[in-house]
Amino acid sequence: MSADLVADAAIGQHVLADLYGIEPELLRDAPTLAAVLQTAAEAAGAHLLASHFHSFGTGDGVTGVVLLAESHISIHTWPEFGFAAADIFMCGDSHPERALSVVVAALKPLRREGRTVARGPRADR
Amino acid sequence: MSADLVADAAIGQHVLADLYGIEPELLRDAPTLAAVLQTAAEAAGAHLLASHFHSFGTGDGVTGVVLLAESHISIHTWPEFGFAAADIFMCGDSHPERALSVVVAALKPLRREGRTVARGPRADR
Repeated sequence: MSADLVADAAIGQHVLADLYGIEPELLRDAPTLAAVLQTAAEAAGAHLLASHFHSFGTGDGVTGVVLLAESHISIHTWPEFGFAAADIFMCGDSHPERALSVVVAALKPLRREGRTVARGPRADR
Repeated sequence: MSADLVADAAIGQHVLADLYGIEPELLRDAPTLAAVLQTAAEAAGAHLLASHFHSFGTGDGVTGVVLLAESHISIHTWPEFGFAAADIFMCGDSHPERALSVVVAALKPLRREGRTVARGPRADR
């Protein structure tokens, strides 16, 4: 990957979002989850390289990733807990917070826990 | 996804590893990086669903992911900084620390920064 580093900016921002209280049926719907993550990537200004989503079967969850020129967005779901773990890892000029907004608007979690982790070297190192 | 929860265990463990001081040529080698991540998944006791690696071109880095029944391992590399960001997200009975050992042994970073984040509901909630 290449990156134009700006002052005080790490090479990437990694948003970890734990999303609780989601409608279980939605967490079993691989095509819809794939569409949500692709829309999220577009909203962030990122560029899609590949998308792969796997359903573990009727009643079970989904695991999926969209691979981006700016890194990736992944989701792993547990319908039995109404839970999804989403990761939004982006470098460059993209906007991971916009991707998170799309995911939250689509999944409508009752509660969420999140953190953003700066990844990699900083321009001032 | 499904998970057998054990007491005091979150549904998943997510290892974020920032790896510095890696030989740049290795960070441009998509087939080798794919093989390393697949070996790491096997070492962790995880099961491969899909693997996708993208090279940004001669001299540039690689972005890739192995999607697992137990979640995923991803890597994004910046040869110009000798840097790789690796993520190992695993649920169930797999062993992410064993996957990390494989990645570190293969990439031989001079320095690493890492953290492990517990993801999702705990059995005692």
